[in-house]
Amino acid sequence: MTATPTAPRPEVPDLVVLDVNETLSDLGGLADAFAAVGLDPRDVEAWFAGVLRDAFALTVLGDNPGFADVATATLRSRLVAVDCADPDAAAAEVLQALVALRPHPDVVPGLVALAALGCRVVTLSNGAASVARTLLSGTDAEAVVEAYLSVEDAGRWKPAPQAYAHALSVTGVPAERALLVAVHPWDLEGAHRAGLRTAWLDRAGRGWPSCFTAPDLTADGFVGLAEQLGPGA
Amino acid sequence: MTATPTAPRPEVPDLVVLDVNETLSDLGGLADAFAAVGLDPRDVEAWFAGVLRDAFALTVLGDNPGFADVATATLRSRLVAVDCADPDAAAAEVLQALVALRPHPDVVPGLVALAALGCRVVTLSNGAASVARTLLSGTDAEAVVEAYLSVEDAGRWKPAPQAYAHALSVTGVPAERALLVAVHPWDLEGAHRAGLRTAWLDRAGRGWPSCFTAPDLTADGFVGLAEQLGPGA
Repeated sequence: MTATPTAPRPEVPDLVVLDVNETLSDLGGLADAFAAVGLDPRDVEAWFAGVLRDAFALTVLGDNPGFADVATATLRSRLVAVDCADPDAAAAEVLQALVALRPHPDVVPGLVALAALGCRVVTLSNGAASVARTLLSGTDAEAVVEAYLSVEDAGRWKPAPQAYAHALSVTGVPAERALLVAVHPWDLEGAHRAGLRTAWLDRAGRGWPSCFTAPDLTADGFVGLAEQLGPGA
Repeated sequence: MTATPTAPRPEVPDLVVLDVNETLSDLGGLADAFAAVGLDPRDVEAWFAGVLRDAFALTVLGDNPGFADVATATLRSRLVAVDCADPDAAAAEVLQALVALRPHPDVVPGLVALAALGCRVVTLSNGAASVARTLLSGTDAEAVVEAYLSVEDAGRWKPAPQAYAHALSVTGVPAERALLVAVHPWDLEGAHRAGLRTAWLDRAGRGWPSCFTAPDLTADGFVGLAEQLGPGA
C-alpha cells in the first residue's frame, strides 16, 4: 500500500454498480445514425437529455416508463419536424444503433482492473438490461459482470431510491459497501441519497455541478478509478 | 359562433395558465450569449434540456431546487470544460441573457386575443416569477396577465401536481375550467394528471410524442390557439 497520510486510499467496495448509457457506451456513435435518417448529428446530446427529462417527468408523476418507448416517441417528433418520410422506421433505425454502440476505451480494461481488486460488478440501467449485456459481449469485461440489472424490475427509474435498492437486494450487499459509478451527476445524487458511495467519471473535464452533492470519488474513466482504489504503484 | 357539427369549437376556459421558458420566451436568443462566453451556440437546446433533466431528478428525490441554481451549476460545468477563465462570471452573463429574452412573435397578440375572449391569464414557471414579468413588461400583454406565479411557492416543480394546484388555489378556478398552455409535452402531462385541460404549442411542427397523453388542443402558437377558441370568422 502506498496510501499517504494526507490522501488515504479509498476503501475498495464490495460491489460496483455501473450506470450504462453514456457511462459505459459512447453516445458519439449515434451521430452517424442521426445523419443517416436526416437528423442533425449535433442533436444527439439534446435528444438524449430530452429522453431523460421526459422520463424523469413521468417518474415524478409515479410512472415507470419504458426507455425504448420514450426514446422512440421523442425521436419520432424530431423526425416529423424534418419531414421524414417514414418516422417510425427511422426511429427504429436509430434505436438499433443505440443498442449497437461500443464502450468507451477505458471501460473494458477498467472493469477488469476493478474485478481484480475483488469488487463484484453489476450494471443498473434505466434502459433494458440487454443493452449492457450486448455492449460488453465478446470483451474481456464480459466475465467480470455478474448481473445486468434494469429499473424495469425496480418499479422506478433512477434516481428514485427504489432503483438502487433493487441492485442491493439482488446482490445482498449493504448500501455502504456499494459504489455507484456514472457520468451523470443526477445518478450519483440518487445513489448518495440511497446510502451508496459514489464515483463520478468526468471524461470531458467538466467540473462538478454544485446543485448536486459532491461525489466521494472523481476519475477520468474506469482505468483511473481502478488506480485510485487499487494497491498503486 | 361558426362551430361545425363535425368539429365543435372548444369551450373557452375561465383561466389560461402559461408556461414561461420556451413557451413565452424564445431561447434562440441565448445563442449569442453562449458564443460570447466561448460555448457552442448550438448547445443551447442540450443545456436547457439538461437543466430540466437535473431539476426533475431532484424533484424525484423530493427537493424543490432553485431554477437559477441548477442553471448556473450546469452552465459552469460546460464553461469549465472549455477552459473558461472565469466560469462564475460567464455563467452569470448567460443567466442575465436568459432573463432578457424576448417573447416569440405570436405571444403578445395571442395573449391579448385570449383575454378578449374573457379568459383570465396567469403564468406558472419553474423559474422565478419575475422572468415572465420582465418578458412581457412594456408590451400590450402586460395588462392582461393578472399574476406571475412560480413553483417556488408551490413546493414542487412542474410536472408535480402541487405546482398546478398552486395556480388553481391562487386564482380560485376549478381544474376543469383551466387550460395549461405549453410547448413542453411533459408540462401538459402534469396538468392533465392534475385535472386541467391542455393546449400544446407546436411551433416547430414536431408532432406529439406518444409517450405522453395527447393534448386537448394543438396550435402553432398563441394566435392560432385564440383563433381555435374564439368566435371565428
